[in-house]
Amino acid sequence: MYPSPMAGSSSGKQHVFQAPRGTRDFYPAEMLRRRWIENAWRQTAVRHGFEEIDGPRFEHADLYTVKSGEGILSELFSFTRAGGETRFALRPEFTPTLARMVAAKAASLPKPVKWFSVGPYFRAERPQRGRLREFLQWNVDLLGSADDDEEAKARQDAEVIACCVEMLRSCGCSSDEINIRISHRGLANQILDAAGEGAFNDYKNGLAFIDCLPKLSAKERREKAQELGITPEEAEFIITAVEHPLDLDNPDFIYRKTGRKDPARIHSAKWINPAGELKSLLSNLNSMKMSAWCNLDAAIVRGLDYYTGLVFEVHEVSGKERAIAGGGRYDKLVELFGGAPTPAVGFAMGDVVLANVLQDKGLMPSDEQLADELGLRPDVFVISTGDDASEDALLGVVAGLRQAGLHARHTYKTTRNVGKLLKEAANTGARFAAILENAETCALKDLESGEQTDGVSVATLVELIRAGRAT
Amino acid sequence: MYPSPMAGSSSGKQHVFQAPRGTRDFYPAEMLRRRWIENAWRQTAVRHGFEEIDGPRFEHADLYTVKSGEGILSELFSFTRAGGETRFALRPEFTPTLARMVAAKAASLPKPVKWFSVGPYFRAERPQRGRLREFLQWNVDLLGSADDDEEAKARQDAEVIACCVEMLRSCGCSSDEINIRISHRGLANQILDAAGEGAFNDYKNGLAFIDCLPKLSAKERREKAQELGITPEEAEFIITAVEHPLDLDNPDFIYRKTGRKDPARIHSAKWINPAGELKSLLSNLNSMKMSAWCNLDAAIVRGLDYYTGLVFEVHEVSGKERAIAGGGRYDKLVELFGGAPTPAVGFAMGDVVLANVLQDKGLMPSDEQLADELGLRPDVFVISTGDDASEDALLGVVAGLRQAGLHARHTYKTTRNVGKLLKEAANTGARFAAILENAETCALKDLESGEQTDGVSVATLVELIRAGRAT
Repeated sequence: MYPSPMAGSSSGKQHVFQAPRGTRDFYPAEMLRRRWIENAWRQTAVRHGFEEIDGPRFEHADLYTVKSGEGILSELFSFTRAGGETRFALRPEFTPTLARMVAAKAASLPKPVKWFSVGPYFRAERPQRGRLREFLQWNVDLLGSADDDEEAKARQDAEVIACCVEMLRSCGCSSDEINIRISHRGLANQILDAAGEGAFNDYKNGLAFIDCLPKLSAKERREKAQELGITPEEAEFIITAVEHPLDLDNPDFIYRKTGRKDPARIHSAKWINPAGELKSLLSNLNSMKMSAWCNLDAAIVRGLDYYTGLVFEVHEVSGKERAIAGGGRYDKLVELFGGAPTPAVGFAMGDVVLANVLQDKGLMPSDEQLADELGLRPDVFVISTGDDASEDALLGVVAGLRQAGLHARHTYKTTRNVGKLLKEAANTGARFAAILENAETCALKDLESGEQTDGVSVATLVELIRAGRAT
Repeated sequence: MYPSPMAGSSSGKQHVFQAPRGTRDFYPAEMLRRRWIENAWRQTAVRHGFEEIDGPRFEHADLYTVKSGEGILSELFSFTRAGGETRFALRPEFTPTLARMVAAKAASLPKPVKWFSVGPYFRAERPQRGRLREFLQWNVDLLGSADDDEEAKARQDAEVIACCVEMLRSCGCSSDEINIRISHRGLANQILDAAGEGAFNDYKNGLAFIDCLPKLSAKERREKAQELGITPEEAEFIITAVEHPLDLDNPDFIYRKTGRKDPARIHSAKWINPAGELKSLLSNLNSMKMSAWCNLDAAIVRGLDYYTGLVFEVHEVSGKERAIAGGGRYDKLVELFGGAPTPAVGFAMGDVVLANVLQDKGLMPSDEQLADELGLRPDVFVISTGDDASEDALLGVVAGLRQAGLHARHTYKTTRNVGKLLKEAANTGARFAAILENAETCALKDLESGEQTDGVSVATLVELIRAGRAT
């Protein structure tokens, strides 16, 4: 037995089913907002030359455990088919699917691969503000060739960030409200390397420590360091390095800023020096007039293991909400899934935080504006005055208009009061009302201007409405 | 341990992950086709006055077992959260979600409710032609008021069927190629009732017998009848009644056609006589000029329990493929989910059979046509000739065009050979090429007419391209 999802309704007698916790029902009003966001995602990606793809909503669970170990399964919805042995999991993110798809096609794909996708993702977590169990996500990825040089990669990084910024700008956000916080995994690695043996040997713990710094008080930071096996001295060094303003013109900036005296050790890090890459990226973002949106922030590391260079997060400046988007460069992932070496950069943006931010800033259009922008306004509302001829003709006239490609409506009410029906027509947002005079002619009323022409032949209705004219 | 999804690649050394069996990867070419179908679904539904909604991709498993018993779980992908007790299931169909959503809002929804949705559905079956484990489905439903009379319901039935037909017509199908096979649950009930006590007591078995008749030989029919506990005499009666042409003008048609002599028994059936409803429906479809697409077929019963009146299936006439769509009237379902009495009619159309049919008939547009219809053609391809000024300007010019709302592209190749780059521009389907002369001016070439204007100011590019002019 398991708990019933039936909840008592107000009457106390009937029972209604509810959507699973952390998932959403999209009634028409919510769906309008979702479609508007999905459209903005699609249009922005297309404008930037990305092509749409998609994978299955569930994958072999191996696709996620191969990177992260079996432990990841507790964070996923996983299942087998009745009687089957293969374990599947609802996809928690798109990048493994993308890497699998690129690896499978390998040589046959013309480079660069510029792909985006829009779809549902799933997390078996406790739902909280900005984090649901089912959410929508926009993924944008640019995968290059193994012979791309540092300059080419920096241009690709900038193009991907620009696509992300443009989506937010097209929704009405400004650079005063949104912050693109940029860093580089090589920078985090350098800091951890310079901090001492302990943190460097626990590379993942070091990243986890940097990742949580912005959210913690001094006391909590000490506790966290201890929990992660980082010495107080190392923790102190890491905090100082992360919080110091970055000087990209000085490649030894970490060594200099923190006063450490071991440049040789720094340069022995297996990671390239991130300063050059970040400088090229910022220069490109400047050419694209994106500088006002972006700033460097060494505290950005991103949780996922697979990043190898650029990492970035998009935040509302007040910092009240979770990240709107996040991404970075993952040059080794396609290889991990059996593909050829393929440098890659991309990001993901979820719909939940984005919608919260747009709503809070008053940037979510009204239902009327949404219907207008999404092309959902009826072209014409057909009215029967109730006499036999127009009553008999109504169904056929409406069907004919729809067959001609027009969005046509009519009432389902029994009233044939033309005044009331014109009001209903206006409420639907229809452009025209066609009031049938008989089976052959109607009065065509422009519901915006109020202009009305009588005796319009039903046969010419399509042409007039398409042309946006009442005569 | 479970079987690994890794399959050997041709090299025998590397391993690649694959999509789960019965699911699909949508690369850009496949995605174009999917988007085209989704767009046709959406546009047709909107044109007919339906509003888009959606529910979660998974529901409480109870939502499905309450109707069909625990046995249904073997046909679904079901799961619990790690450590959780609530059982969820990936949705196999939309109707229970829809009924739940309507029941939850009850009185607050203005009637009729005209909703559609487009999204993924899941079946834990063995995949076969036309049937996958993950597929897309278009659901269109019209829910009326408890006081709708028979005439109102017949108009709603016709409107829903018309929406289904219109989608296929808009894709290029004709009434010669597609058959809407229409029947009524009351008709099946009458036949079973008249057939005798055995079949009527096993109502579900009787429906299952009618359902499989078109697929079976005479011998198989005898075996099936025995398996379902239907006597040879009952089976013979049912077959005769199902295969006899229907005479809607004679409400006792079953009794008459089959020669049974027990009209009293027929009229005692708890179901209303279906002839009147079917006659009204056909009359409406005739007014809508849909008659050529439709025919009556008493063999149509639909597998699902919840139908109460009209049932219909959409087939390619050759009968080679599974049903393209199916639906019917389900007047009791919203009540079952705790809502007020709500007459309802709807249908679902999957993408898999539809795409097979369109492909077979040569009705799937080419990739170029699809890109054109979906508005994916680039507005402009920007070319740098390789000198320092245009090279430096390239990134900024492209970004500026995109920020102005244009779909702008550029090469990622190292070549600066203008001939080669114009070829690349043409291959993308771009409307214009802008060949930078320096940071301020370019040659603007109309790639359709070949017309080219030199010395065009970069500042006026947006305006010219939007107007579709090279000068």
